[in-house]
Amino acid sequence: MTTDRMTADGARRSYTIVGAGAVGLLYGTRLAVAGHPVRWLVRSGADTIAAEGIEVQSEGRRLRIEPADVVVASEPGALPASDVVVVATKTTANGRLGELLAGAGVPGATIAVFQNGLGAEEVVRAQVPGTGAVLGGLCFVCAHRHGPGRAEHLDYGAVTLAPLEVEHLPAADEVAADLRRAGVEAAVLDDLGVARWRKLVWNIPFNGLCALLDASTDALLADAATRALVADLMDEVIAGARAAGHDIPEAFRDEMLAATDAMRPYDPSMKLDLAAGRPLEIDAIYDEAVRTAREVGVPMPRTEALAAMLRFRGRPAPLPPT
Amino acid sequence: MTTDRMTADGARRSYTIVGAGAVGLLYGTRLAVAGHPVRWLVRSGADTIAAEGIEVQSEGRRLRIEPADVVVASEPGALPASDVVVVATKTTANGRLGELLAGAGVPGATIAVFQNGLGAEEVVRAQVPGTGAVLGGLCFVCAHRHGPGRAEHLDYGAVTLAPLEVEHLPAADEVAADLRRAGVEAAVLDDLGVARWRKLVWNIPFNGLCALLDASTDALLADAATRALVADLMDEVIAGARAAGHDIPEAFRDEMLAATDAMRPYDPSMKLDLAAGRPLEIDAIYDEAVRTAREVGVPMPRTEALAAMLRFRGRPAPLPPT
Repeated sequence: MTTDRMTADGARRSYTIVGAGAVGLLYGTRLAVAGHPVRWLVRSGADTIAAEGIEVQSEGRRLRIEPADVVVASEPGALPASDVVVVATKTTANGRLGELLAGAGVPGATIAVFQNGLGAEEVVRAQVPGTGAVLGGLCFVCAHRHGPGRAEHLDYGAVTLAPLEVEHLPAADEVAADLRRAGVEAAVLDDLGVARWRKLVWNIPFNGLCALLDASTDALLADAATRALVADLMDEVIAGARAAGHDIPEAFRDEMLAATDAMRPYDPSMKLDLAAGRPLEIDAIYDEAVRTAREVGVPMPRTEALAAMLRFRGRPAPLPPT
Repeated sequence: MTTDRMTADGARRSYTIVGAGAVGLLYGTRLAVAGHPVRWLVRSGADTIAAEGIEVQSEGRRLRIEPADVVVASEPGALPASDVVVVATKTTANGRLGELLAGAGVPGATIAVFQNGLGAEEVVRAQVPGTGAVLGGLCFVCAHRHGPGRAEHLDYGAVTLAPLEVEHLPAADEVAADLRRAGVEAAVLDDLGVARWRKLVWNIPFNGLCALLDASTDALLADAATRALVADLMDEVIAGARAAGHDIPEAFRDEMLAATDAMRPYDPSMKLDLAAGRPLEIDAIYDEAVRTAREVGVPMPRTEALAAMLRFRGRPAPLPPT
């Protein structure tokens, strides 16, 4: 057990953070500052990060990793294998997760997927042989990346962890304990499906509508028409979750509306991704939910409509004439 | 009967055109050029139209009414009462239709509503006492207004007429005959509900999606996701129509898709209205259909979602800080 490994030699569990977006930078830096060996596996910007270090502005604090202390590479083979691998890439790259994670963790490593949407944990289990626990990590956080190794943490930050297989609950407890020691609010749920669908109750209405309507959360909730649409979408997601066997009470909708009313106005990453011409996480956040609910006979027509509009808006620009 | 009145004295039926947008200008000018007395009741621009006349570019022809021949006013009391009143305003002004049309027609006049959406004929019947036939007029036309008394007719132009009450079918035939003599393709249907809902099968997907996605009809049909959404929306409208007793065959969806594939790429007026900050015809095109279908137990969730998003996008801008 990794717990024994840590307590036996007194060392902190080592972490490889895959992806240096806002989420990866925030939690990886917190873990590093708390004394964990942290390695960074990034698609681009490795040279800049190696040369300039990492800096995260988090709730008024400046968290910094000096260049001499940064262990960063673009290939897993160039990094030591870690006890825990945190997948903090966008889901749009999940098609090559197996390749990306090969060798990133020690034999029996825990892989924690810090993404939105459905389905990534199953992909990890299928494509990364030799993995121990596979955890879902749901990040309730407002944070933005500003450049290679640079991020700003604006608000919230709690992480909910849940294991793909319930016998791996201890691994979820271990990662949660590490995060808490690093100053991150962390909770563990035993039902990954419930955890993922609860997050979708928020992501499905707000990610899509904020992107399509170029609006922040507060504007959507202040308008009667879009507030009703948000509520209808939440109902649709809850009905899909319940039909798929994930027990989310119908009253969760009003909880989520109230929580968002109380939130600082926020632009979900999908809005920023659309504005910047980056790929949108439509498969993981929308299609998987629609497909899962349809298999148990529950249509999600509003969710499907949103997905189609997002897919249109996010389509690659035509090549310029030559 | 107006037919007798015309044939008895050999004169052409007189028309008051209410609203000098693209639709009013196009059909009113055609009728005037064909020899009908045409009077214009406009909300704004009466002085400019009186001074400069009316000019419509229609399929390569320049149709012109000289200033000396223009009869235009901003109040119905300032115009002679006509045999036929054509309502060519946006539905967003339908709240004051009774007031707008008072005295515009002779006793027993025919009122023909050249608008999209549902419900305007019933409003006219209820609010304009002394009216004879009330007709729906469905204009399948691509045309744009360029300024007071100026419009361009780009493509199509057929009008389908249907009476609110079937006993007024002869009045629909008369107006259709006048339009045909003026060079307009015109048809008569005996079922106004079928006529209006058939038009909605096109307007509900394309008006809203073209506006929300800032796209022309061809772009929506070329993308697999939005093409499927257009088809789903059409299915939803057809199901609503059928439940409400209007017999539109399910195959009408594929007819409409094929017809739009064959059309020149088009920007529906709702897209232009949104871009120009003008009010959107959400009530007449979306809400009435959703309400009608809901009353007979058929939900239209995609249509409702579109309406909510349009209402958000079309909301009045906040007042500037003082």
